[in-house]
Amino acid sequence: MARFLKKRSTAVGSAPGTLAYTGKHRLQKPKITIFSYDETEFEEQVVEKVEEAIAYRDRPTTTWINIDGLHEVELIERQGEQYGLHPLLLEDVVNAGQRPKLEDYDEHLFIVLKMFWIPEGESRVESEQVSLVLGKGFVLSFQESEGDLFEPVRERLRSGKGRFRKMGAAYLAYALLDAIVDGYYVILENLGERIEAIEEGLIDDPQSDTLQDIYGLKREMIFLRKSVWPLREVVGGIERSESDLIDKDCQVFFRDVYDHTIQVIDAVDTYRDLLSGLQDLYLSSISNKMNEVMKVLTIIATIFIPMTFVVGIYGMNFNNMPEFEFEHAYSAFWLGMIAIAGSLLYMFRRLKWL
Amino acid sequence: MARFLKKRSTAVGSAPGTLAYTGKHRLQKPKITIFSYDETEFEEQVVEKVEEAIAYRDRPTTTWINIDGLHEVELIERQGEQYGLHPLLLEDVVNAGQRPKLEDYDEHLFIVLKMFWIPEGESRVESEQVSLVLGKGFVLSFQESEGDLFEPVRERLRSGKGRFRKMGAAYLAYALLDAIVDGYYVILENLGERIEAIEEGLIDDPQSDTLQDIYGLKREMIFLRKSVWPLREVVGGIERSESDLIDKDCQVFFRDVYDHTIQVIDAVDTYRDLLSGLQDLYLSSISNKMNEVMKVLTIIATIFIPMTFVVGIYGMNFNNMPEFEFEHAYSAFWLGMIAIAGSLLYMFRRLKWL
Amino acid sequence: MARFLKKRSTAVGSAPGTLAYTGKHRLQKPKITIFSYDETEFEEQVVEKVEEAIAYRDRPTTTWINIDGLHEVELIERQGEQYGLHPLLLEDVVNAGQRPKLEDYDEHLFIVLKMFWIPEGESRVESEQVSLVLGKGFVLSFQESEGDLFEPVRERLRSGKGRFRKMGAAYLAYALLDAIVDGYYVILENLGERIEAIEEGLIDDPQSDTLQDIYGLKREMIFLRKSVWPLREVVGGIERSESDLIDKDCQVFFRDVYDHTIQVIDAVDTYRDLLSGLQDLYLSSISNKMNEVMKVLTIIATIFIPMTFVVGIYGMNFNNMPEFEFEHAYSAFWLGMIAIAGSLLYMFRRLKWL
Amino acid sequence: MARFLKKRSTAVGSAPGTLAYTGKHRLQKPKITIFSYDETEFEEQVVEKVEEAIAYRDRPTTTWINIDGLHEVELIERQGEQYGLHPLLLEDVVNAGQRPKLEDYDEHLFIVLKMFWIPEGESRVESEQVSLVLGKGFVLSFQESEGDLFEPVRERLRSGKGRFRKMGAAYLAYALLDAIVDGYYVILENLGERIEAIEEGLIDDPQSDTLQDIYGLKREMIFLRKSVWPLREVVGGIERSESDLIDKDCQVFFRDVYDHTIQVIDAVDTYRDLLSGLQDLYLSSISNKMNEVMKVLTIIATIFIPMTFVVGIYGMNFNNMPEFEFEHAYSAFWLGMIAIAGSLLYMFRRLKWL
Amino acid sequence: MARFLKKRSTAVGSAPGTLAYTGKHRLQKPKITIFSYDETEFEEQVVEKVEEAIAYRDRPTTTWINIDGLHEVELIERQGEQYGLHPLLLEDVVNAGQRPKLEDYDEHLFIVLKMFWIPEGESRVESEQVSLVLGKGFVLSFQESEGDLFEPVRERLRSGKGRFRKMGAAYLAYALLDAIVDGYYVILENLGERIEAIEEGLIDDPQSDTLQDIYGLKREMIFLRKSVWPLREVVGGIERSESDLIDKDCQVFFRDVYDHTIQVIDAVDTYRDLLSGLQDLYLSSISNKMNEVMKVLTIIATIFIPMTFVVGIYGMNFNNMPEFEFEHAYSAFWLGMIAIAGSLLYMFRRLKWL
Repeated sequence: MARFLKKRSTAVGSAPGTLAYTGKHRLQKPKITIFSYDETEFEEQVVEKVEEAIAYRDRPTTTWINIDGLHEVELIERQGEQYGLHPLLLEDVVNAGQRPKLEDYDEHLFIVLKMFWIPEGESRVESEQVSLVLGKGFVLSFQESEGDLFEPVRERLRSGKGRFRKMGAAYLAYALLDAIVDGYYVILENLGERIEAIEEGLIDDPQSDTLQDIYGLKREMIFLRKSVWPLREVVGGIERSESDLIDKDCQVFFRDVYDHTIQVIDAVDTYRDLLSGLQDLYLSSISNKMNEVMKVLTIIATIFIPMTFVVGIYGMNFNNMPEFEFEHAYSAFWLGMIAIAGSLLYMFRRLKWL
Repeated sequence: MARFLKKRSTAVGSAPGTLAYTGKHRLQKPKITIFSYDETEFEEQVVEKVEEAIAYRDRPTTTWINIDGLHEVELIERQGEQYGLHPLLLEDVVNAGQRPKLEDYDEHLFIVLKMFWIPEGESRVESEQVSLVLGKGFVLSFQESEGDLFEPVRERLRSGKGRFRKMGAAYLAYALLDAIVDGYYVILENLGERIEAIEEGLIDDPQSDTLQDIYGLKREMIFLRKSVWPLREVVGGIERSESDLIDKDCQVFFRDVYDHTIQVIDAVDTYRDLLSGLQDLYLSSISNKMNEVMKVLTIIATIFIPMTFVVGIYGMNFNNMPEFEFEHAYSAFWLGMIAIAGSLLYMFRRLKWL
Repeated sequence: MARFLKKRSTAVGSAPGTLAYTGKHRLQKPKITIFSYDETEFEEQVVEKVEEAIAYRDRPTTTWINIDGLHEVELIERQGEQYGLHPLLLEDVVNAGQRPKLEDYDEHLFIVLKMFWIPEGESRVESEQVSLVLGKGFVLSFQESEGDLFEPVRERLRSGKGRFRKMGAAYLAYALLDAIVDGYYVILENLGERIEAIEEGLIDDPQSDTLQDIYGLKREMIFLRKSVWPLREVVGGIERSESDLIDKDCQVFFRDVYDHTIQVIDAVDTYRDLLSGLQDLYLSSISNKMNEVMKVLTIIATIFIPMTFVVGIYGMNFNNMPEFEFEHAYSAFWLGMIAIAGSLLYMFRRLKWL
Repeated sequence: MARFLKKRSTAVGSAPGTLAYTGKHRLQKPKITIFSYDETEFEEQVVEKVEEAIAYRDRPTTTWINIDGLHEVELIERQGEQYGLHPLLLEDVVNAGQRPKLEDYDEHLFIVLKMFWIPEGESRVESEQVSLVLGKGFVLSFQESEGDLFEPVRERLRSGKGRFRKMGAAYLAYALLDAIVDGYYVILENLGERIEAIEEGLIDDPQSDTLQDIYGLKREMIFLRKSVWPLREVVGGIERSESDLIDKDCQVFFRDVYDHTIQVIDAVDTYRDLLSGLQDLYLSSISNKMNEVMKVLTIIATIFIPMTFVVGIYGMNFNNMPEFEFEHAYSAFWLGMIAIAGSLLYMFRRLKWL
Repeated sequence: MARFLKKRSTAVGSAPGTLAYTGKHRLQKPKITIFSYDETEFEEQVVEKVEEAIAYRDRPTTTWINIDGLHEVELIERQGEQYGLHPLLLEDVVNAGQRPKLEDYDEHLFIVLKMFWIPEGESRVESEQVSLVLGKGFVLSFQESEGDLFEPVRERLRSGKGRFRKMGAAYLAYALLDAIVDGYYVILENLGERIEAIEEGLIDDPQSDTLQDIYGLKREMIFLRKSVWPLREVVGGIERSESDLIDKDCQVFFRDVYDHTIQVIDAVDTYRDLLSGLQDLYLSSISNKMNEVMKVLTIIATIFIPMTFVVGIYGMNFNNMPEFEFEHAYSAFWLGMIAIAGSLLYMFRRLKWL
């Protein structure tokens, strides 16, 4: 159940603010990438030590520092010190079991999110925690492992087209948020197709493992829902935020992400409803099949049991059975059999069993 | 599952405000229709290029520009520029997977809605996105394809009767909204009749595909509900709106649409409840039928199994079976048979199985 | 499904404010009754034309004009003009598919309600729309057909006892509202008795049509709930209303009706819960019966099948079966039979099947 | 269903404020008990007529007048006049079907409650309506019948220990309320024990009437819930009340009752959840039992049916069956039988049926 | 059901504020532990009498007095007097059936919580009530029995590392709260593992006691939920509290506990959903198994019943059965048998039963 409840970062009862990474992704070495840009300048760099990043803090450009890999907690700690982050914020960054949330630390906004993907050839949705810190002129992003959904954002930054480089850090935060929420659509499309496949399969030929598939999808829905519902408050909170960090003309973009979030929540809830419906349909089709089986058994047994009884009678060894005296006894016996079978078949047709 | 979650307009992570049509309806050529009217004037025109529409922008008359077909995104873009629409608004117009919503862009209100219809001979409800932009003196409407529910509105405009031409753009927006919500009644009546048909069928003769029908209707309800629930907020939002674009004496009309919306939501919820009830009834009737089948089998088997046993006994080849010595053995045997059958039948009647 | 969603008054898309009666009750001729009274005067009159009612509008007495029959829409229209009613209000009066609602048109309060009754010998609840308009010194009431729950109110007016004639129009509106809500108690008592009958029947002897009865009652509950829930807002809205039309010392009476409304809602919800419980009980009793049937079959079959096998053995024609040499073979055979049957019966008792 | 919806006090449509007792408890004669006390004085008296109580109204002591028996409505009416109670309040006092509620009549607070008990040897919870009127220096309490939960309150008054006599009328009202809520614990413990008994019985030996017991308890829960939920608002309302009648230092006591009320509601909801779980468990255990029955039948039948077929073959009268020529035919036959039975048993073990 | 509803502290109706311990844990002797510290000093002491604790009340250090064992109510009473605690607060301390709650007594905050653990080798969650009183410069904690989750807090106090000793009483209260909520994670992990075990077992081999396990876990969830839900209000209440007792820079820590509480609630709800899904899966797998059993029975019976009938025919003793004249009769008989069996097997394959 580690997917549903991550252990807290530290031994039960230890001091708050003690950093300890609780995720399972462990890079060889954390990777620090720095983007620094404004309308005229653009710089992209991969550095070795967080100390190299400090130079960018006080520049007038917008700076994006992304750290992949959270297990080297001292690195996170040093980074936090440079940017004046609260120890509890850092604890949340490295503790990979956070619920999506938005916290306003006056000088910066702290956003915790989940990034989802489905590993090749598997059916379970995997998740990774992404933390964003939006400050005056900078965005820090922390990820558990390399590989993310931010590549298109980087491409747009590099290309320098559109309004991106002209806008400040809030727009960058929006772009990252938007990329993550976009990723949810991919997951939901995948799950939606699986639901559709089950729906089609159900009507043609319900299998005994169909309910396991349905249960599996329901579990993924529970998993997604858990991360997606709080997102609503998070993104809605940013949109309504009165923080100086969110400029007025950026708010409309956050409203856009909010809309997408609502659509994702809608889809998750819709899928749950559909899955419930499919489950009912499945159980009923199983029930119908059983009914068919029972009918066949009953028809066969009901026809032959009386006939077998009659047959037994004429195998008895009583001395003077009058039937044997009769010349056409054997033919009469067969007529009787046909009469029995016929009248029973007629009865079944009237009962609409045939 | 494309019905439940449309792909976002653009490749995951691309720049916001990039227009790309995501619906499946593709007209040969978009069709632009312009209505311009006030108490004294009335003009109706189909134009080729959006540039021709610009002339109407600054006239004192009320202008309604309707565009059928959204796949030529540059056209939408140019139209948007002329009327000063925000790029994100335009993105929502062409992205056919929007949730019904109301957005206040100060200078215009943006309303996204779904229009429903059931194609001839099919059982699935189809939908099309309709976007309305209400500005000072004009209404823009965008539809995915030709053919809509607005014909009666056009007729009333042409006839010039009643108050229509005297009222401004807000009343026009109301009339369009009202026409769409009216369309929901048609869909719901259709679905209501299908529910009634199932209800009647259930009592007479439950079929094994009845639950599939019920599931199908439930799915349509989930589909409708998804679009109708947010409508409540949308129409309620307009009614309570403090925007200058909605004159005071128009608000009573929006309250009327709001009432209809509530009635539609009520009906959708009521139908869901009825369908749940029907499903229970169906499952129970299946269960009852199985019970009947089992009873028949049990009665037949229980009567004949003991009798067949006795019959077998007198077919055995033991040397000195005393029964055979008895003169009226065979008649006694038949009396025994009748006794067994009779007492079992009596037992079944007491158990209320017969 | 006409019970659950009435067609809108007019063809889809026609002008709002166009009056068209949508109910099914059609009187020969609408009946107009006028009561005019104050502490000293009292007048009761049945008139032919609405124009005759106009004289009462400006008198200082309290006037109650009741119209039975809504299909002559011009009559309603003329009445509306005399009393300055909004066209949309009149549309709601004649459109019999309204949801109960309260609308404040400043100069008058408009209340739409449902009146329920169960026709003799039927099980379905029928409803009729009643609209009340409370104005300064007058109450207009509109009903679909003759025959109503207002007779006791009329009696109290005629008798002149109590405070009735001293109080104004608001008290009259209260009295009418109270009479309608009182009518709900009668319906609920009827339904409650039917639930009780099902409950008793279930324990004694569950029938295969019991679930149909339960479903029928559930459907009535859905139907009632749909009309009763909004009533809460309606009556609560009047109680909290700041309208001049409701005098302070009348508010305590509306609070009283509000209490009764809550009790009715409570009862509807309670009945729904009870019906769900009964349904579970029914399904389980069906399941138990099936279990009984299966047990009987299994016990009979399991006892006789092995015995019949043994019997068959001694009917075989092998040449040298040693059993036949033994003198007391036949008696031994019967001892074996008894042993088989006995041990199986013992097993069934241990399995608690007997 | 009289338990769930009491008839309204008067014939449908009669004048409000007309008193008519609707409960079923009818004492020989109403009993009026008066307690009058302050820090120094204490008087307890049973009087014949309400007029004798009037003397206490204007004394500086705290007065508690308790009336057992509500069917003599003139008595209630006279009492009401003496203490200036509103006719609608009195109507609620005698109409035993009230929902628990709190009404603020400025000069007095009116509280309606239910008192519960389970009659000896029965399983249904019975209820009685208790009305409290808290005024300046007095509390009036009205009960349907003699015998109540107030004895401990009287004892504490008589003993004169603790703070009771020093506190005013609000504290007395609190004490009565607390005594009633305490009574709910007794009921809930009784029901809780019955749930526990069912739980234990289910695991050992599910009976066919277990579901009836579960349904019975569910019905009691529905009944209790109906009375207990509104209590939350009632007691919460008193706690938050700004009425002069509740002194500041009494509020902490009402908060205490409020806590108890929440605990009672919690318990009712918890019990409902447990009962639902038990019902599922029961249905599944029935299902499992059926499965067992089916398996036994199938194993027995599947083993013997093929063997009986073989046995039948060697009972046939064909002239030249080669098997009979073989010397050890009969022994070979038995070996074949054992082989058939053995391989079928092996198959069943592999299918995990044994 | 004592787990779900504890008896109230005192006999029904007795005076409020009467202390009586209602839990079941009874220590030999209550144990009083005192911690007194500030940045420079630190003292830890176990005392015999509460009077020895009074000396610490007025010191400038932060004092934590922990009492294990609540059955000696006079001790609690004396402690309460020393620290000016309200009698109702003390009643709640010793009454072990409280719902988690926060009460603001101006001079101190009173927090009631549940501490959970699962006894070695058992599956039921046990709980113990912990009460915290946060005052100016002190925290009092009351537990039912020795042994708690506070050991790590004590260790951190003793070690003197970190900010702990510098912060005041509010931080101490936070640390205790945090330790308790941390304990919930341990419980939930345990339950989560059991859910996982059931999930795995279900797919491999559903047992008839699986549903009992599921029911058991559901019951624990109901139990936990009951205590965890109110916690949300409690911790949220402290976070938002305007009390002077919570310094500004402590609030961020309480927000952290609040986050953890939400995660715990989320997990409980998620587990409930998973358990419901598992229950459906279980019931369906039982249904599938029954289906398999029925199919085997039906196939075997359906094949052999007709064949046994034919076999019976040739065991009859009619005089002139033409079949016997035919030379290869016996071989033809076997061909017939094979034909019957073959065509039935072919039918079953077409029905997809094989």
